[in-house]
Amino acid sequence: MQFTERQKRIINIVKKNEPITSEAIAKKLKLTRATLRTDLAILTMAGVLDARPKVGYFYSGKSTINYFAERISNIKVSEVKSLPVVVSEGTSVYDAIVTLFLEDVGTIFVTTEGLLSGVVSRKDFLKSAIGGTDINKIPVGVIMTRMPNIVVTEPDESVLDAAIKIIEHQVDSLPIVEKIKNENGEEGYKVIGRISKTNITRLFVDIANTE
Amino acid sequence: MQFTERQKRIINIVKKNEPITSEAIAKKLKLTRATLRTDLAILTMAGVLDARPKVGYFYSGKSTINYFAERISNIKVSEVKSLPVVVSEGTSVYDAIVTLFLEDVGTIFVTTEGLLSGVVSRKDFLKSAIGGTDINKIPVGVIMTRMPNIVVTEPDESVLDAAIKIIEHQVDSLPIVEKIKNENGEEGYKVIGRISKTNITRLFVDIANTE
Repeated sequence: MQFTERQKRIINIVKKNEPITSEAIAKKLKLTRATLRTDLAILTMAGVLDARPKVGYFYSGKSTINYFAERISNIKVSEVKSLPVVVSEGTSVYDAIVTLFLEDVGTIFVTTEGLLSGVVSRKDFLKSAIGGTDINKIPVGVIMTRMPNIVVTEPDESVLDAAIKIIEHQVDSLPIVEKIKNENGEEGYKVIGRISKTNITRLFVDIANTE
Repeated sequence: MQFTERQKRIINIVKKNEPITSEAIAKKLKLTRATLRTDLAILTMAGVLDARPKVGYFYSGKSTINYFAERISNIKVSEVKSLPVVVSEGTSVYDAIVTLFLEDVGTIFVTTEGLLSGVVSRKDFLKSAIGGTDINKIPVGVIMTRMPNIVVTEPDESVLDAAIKIIEHQVDSLPIVEKIKNENGEEGYKVIGRISKTNITRLFVDIANTE
């Protein structure tokens, strides 16, 4: 919603003086009520102002943000995902760290017989690296966060819901998964992508820069 | 901007059929032109539709996003900042890593005589920890990214600009700084805060959840 200069001035006047009648707004702007009628109608319809009979106008100003919320609720995880980096449970911690650097990611996912079994973050690796153990000998399975303690997302989930999970569970990224059965008939998750704080920060910039 | 069901249907019709006359829209909705007049006026004033005389309505739909861009351009770094975690240049890598864990941050800032001199990320620490050197003996000054190669932000900068810097320079966070002179009269930056991908992801959630 792009407001005219006059509409912006009206919004500011209402913000500071609510509730305020159209007469009082007109007086402050040195205009007639008739001149303001269209602007006030538009601002009210747009949900920026709230009009109450015999009281005046209130500032509501929330609707544009609601529209933004509605819009980003419609952006799905699958639209902003990155490729996942996956190693098997027997990979040494050292090799997993090398993979982390080569792929330049913050989190590595671990699979066992085709199913997601663990997640290892840079923080986990750092803890292990300074822990005095031989990272060439320890498999990644020993230090990973293990199912079912992994927070996951699915391709059809909204980016907003994924962002909420990231904040609430204090993780850097989520594996994007699909429910499958592996060759042994075991049910679990196949890792098909990754969504991270980086993806969300980039989306934030992209939405803001959209003309 | 919260649109009514009918307004949403009009938007969809215009999206698919642009340019389309008000007669044609009315026909599709089985309504009279008079009934649609207010809706079309509101959608046009809101910048969602574009009306061209003798041609019809076009879908423009960009203005709400512009408004979002305008709004987040007005949110300043100082409004979403976190506290910085700062160590001196002589601190051992091991002690700095312990600080990183205790404070639960992803990046540590290094100051020398009160001025920002370096930045160390979890990635730098991990590289150092697996590098085979004695992290108890090496000072953090050896592994840090050093001024002037540090990307900074200031309290009055917009969160959007800070987010762009984070994405473009591929860092996890930025120090929020103020220009000062230290006791020796040297010019430089005082570190007064930190803004990270976490802050931006949280802001994304907060804006989207605003009612």
